[in-house]
Amino acid sequence: MAKDGTETAEETEKMIEPEVCKEEKDLCALPLVPTPADPQLMRAVMLSGFGGLNKLRVAKRVLPVLQEGEVKIRVKACGLNFIDLMVRQGNIDNPPKTPLLPGFELSGIVETLGDGVKGFEIGDRVMAFVNYNAWAEVVCTPVEFVYKIPEDMSFAEAAAFPMNFVTAYMMLFEVANLREGMSVLVHSAGGGVGQAVAQLCSTVPRVTVFGTASSFKHEAIKDSLTHLFDRNADYVQEVKRIMPDGVDIVLDCLCGENTGKGLGLLKPLGTYILYGSSNMVTGETKSFFSFAKSWWQVEKVNPIKLYEENKVIAGFSLLNLLFKQGRAALIQGVMDKLLTLYSEKKIKPRVDSLWALEEVKEAMQRIHDRGNIGKLILDVEKTPTPLMANDSTETSEAGEEEEDHEGDTENKERMPFIQ
Amino acid sequence: MAKDGTETAEETEKMIEPEVCKEEKDLCALPLVPTPADPQLMRAVMLSGFGGLNKLRVAKRVLPVLQEGEVKIRVKACGLNFIDLMVRQGNIDNPPKTPLLPGFELSGIVETLGDGVKGFEIGDRVMAFVNYNAWAEVVCTPVEFVYKIPEDMSFAEAAAFPMNFVTAYMMLFEVANLREGMSVLVHSAGGGVGQAVAQLCSTVPRVTVFGTASSFKHEAIKDSLTHLFDRNADYVQEVKRIMPDGVDIVLDCLCGENTGKGLGLLKPLGTYILYGSSNMVTGETKSFFSFAKSWWQVEKVNPIKLYEENKVIAGFSLLNLLFKQGRAALIQGVMDKLLTLYSEKKIKPRVDSLWALEEVKEAMQRIHDRGNIGKLILDVEKTPTPLMANDSTETSEAGEEEEDHEGDTENKERMPFIQ
Repeated sequence: MAKDGTETAEETEKMIEPEVCKEEKDLCALPLVPTPADPQLMRAVMLSGFGGLNKLRVAKRVLPVLQEGEVKIRVKACGLNFIDLMVRQGNIDNPPKTPLLPGFELSGIVETLGDGVKGFEIGDRVMAFVNYNAWAEVVCTPVEFVYKIPEDMSFAEAAAFPMNFVTAYMMLFEVANLREGMSVLVHSAGGGVGQAVAQLCSTVPRVTVFGTASSFKHEAIKDSLTHLFDRNADYVQEVKRIMPDGVDIVLDCLCGENTGKGLGLLKPLGTYILYGSSNMVTGETKSFFSFAKSWWQVEKVNPIKLYEENKVIAGFSLLNLLFKQGRAALIQGVMDKLLTLYSEKKIKPRVDSLWALEEVKEAMQRIHDRGNIGKLILDVEKTPTPLMANDSTETSEAGEEEEDHEGDTENKERMPFIQ
Repeated sequence: MAKDGTETAEETEKMIEPEVCKEEKDLCALPLVPTPADPQLMRAVMLSGFGGLNKLRVAKRVLPVLQEGEVKIRVKACGLNFIDLMVRQGNIDNPPKTPLLPGFELSGIVETLGDGVKGFEIGDRVMAFVNYNAWAEVVCTPVEFVYKIPEDMSFAEAAAFPMNFVTAYMMLFEVANLREGMSVLVHSAGGGVGQAVAQLCSTVPRVTVFGTASSFKHEAIKDSLTHLFDRNADYVQEVKRIMPDGVDIVLDCLCGENTGKGLGLLKPLGTYILYGSSNMVTGETKSFFSFAKSWWQVEKVNPIKLYEENKVIAGFSLLNLLFKQGRAALIQGVMDKLLTLYSEKKIKPRVDSLWALEEVKEAMQRIHDRGNIGKLILDVEKTPTPLMANDSTETSEAGEEEEDHEGDTENKERMPFIQ
């Protein structure tokens, strides 16, 4: 893995926040840095500490040093996922130390090959996973996490592809065993994974897909699912009304009480998969305590009940599989299958919106407010949209002390660029 | 399902136990019954109440009445499974009322077809599941639980086939997804399911099978597994020594602390399946209280831990799947595949020993003591072996008050007939 470039105190002009520097004397006390024009520096999103949006800013960092077996990529676009919000709050298992550069997936052009790297050439268009450090102009990552992208796939699509489609594919076809005629329930059906799940289900005959999503998204995504419920509706009753025997697969990114509900909705031999815990991402100021509380409130499962009911419960974390559990070769095989489906035009990433690195706060707020339909992309070459009178940056900063950020629709006009 | 024949107080001469009748006045107070020669009566094993071996005896019962959609079978042989011990003790979820006739699988000859039954003819050699009432001379069961048996399969083999092989197949190929190169850990490797698992694993290339079994069985079963450990050994350490990354599939019929151990041994994306809880079958006199205690001692599973570790936990109960959850059609498909494997001589039930109905106590004691290698069969036409001076019936009756029946080897000479 690339060693992190040394952090520099220099920030892009737009992002200078003197009050942040007061709180972070250690960072501001770093030694004199090269000038902004120095080619050894790059722009990157930096998380100075775990907490609210104000912990994020764009900073100049020293370029990562290419290691043996790695590929250096000039980044074009980065994927923004719900897990990035959990990282920002420190709501993950064994969080790394801050300051850090967030982000786990990106697309771009191969710039340099480390010793021992085969199968790639300088100039190749690629997408890649990286264990942090993705939201930057340059990224180094081991070659086993890098995949060539088809000619007709844009960089934005390629940055939207790896996390969501590999997660969806692995859950449906590796952990569960989706087959003809089965039924699937997916939460956050309008999100990146939700849309990938819906598309992959459509590659199998006669699969019924139930989804929950905020009502304002229904018109935009209704063609991708069989049945769509409001995220605040009693989806258990809705599903049972349509399919009294329950469903074969429940994909849950919410956790909490939804685990029990999901298990209850399974048919015999059905599989419940927990792949996230977005209900644990709390209002900006509540993070740690609320998280601990939520953690203990998770319903634990009695194996004997699974035995009596013939049910399966699984957890799926792609990041752990890649970076802690060494399953890159398996993922490579899955990616090959996914790219075949893409070339057959059976799947296609749905991009919600493009944001400059400097707009990362607004982008995160949009995910937090569940305003997105499909994937949010950080476009490294994009110029930030000028702030407007009703700009969301001020809203979100002002809202940091609020109990919760609810309401799905009121932030729709925030985003500067919607595809 | 066939209505139970009315119980009669008449017992086979061998089994008359006047002291039992004193305890069971209700049973003894039943109206005058037909003579033993009456063709409407049959011999059957009866459980008069939940508890120890003394609750079992052979009684004359009125023949079951054939219902629409059922097949009446003249029984030749019945399978005896660990679940039958749990039924005897009442250690199952929602136990039925006693008196009852135990037993869930059998083989025999079709004697009569109920209205609407197609696909079978009188005289067909069959094996079948039935929801209790299997250990009798005549059984009626819905046609969807009846399967024709190949010409070269004996009735004893056929009675040993359904429960063990369907359970093993469903776990390996439906719940988990056994593929080339994977690894499997199975407990009680010398038992009926254990031997079926070992044989089915051998149909997939390069599968490593770890098993635990009492040491005295190792010589007899060592060729069917890759690695064999004593059942009292620290199998976690043994497996980790050979395969430090863990195994892909753990099949657990023990429960209790083995659940945590099994989950701990899984590779990422591995599957732990609980298909029994034999550790909850206690000494003869402890049943209910001990069971309740064991139940609460079962380790519950945190879904977030499964998420972090990318693991799958499942429960599998074939009886619930068949009789509570209506999956007979699925099992029919599995049985077709299994019979193909049998015809290709890739699998073959391993029969431990044959017992007369009147020897059911000795047979159960043998399972309890984990003395069997393969399946115990009740042979309906077998004449009981004359009691000997050191006969086990007296041992087990005398032993009813003991704390526990341990020791795997000392009962080996008990059984009257070993294949």
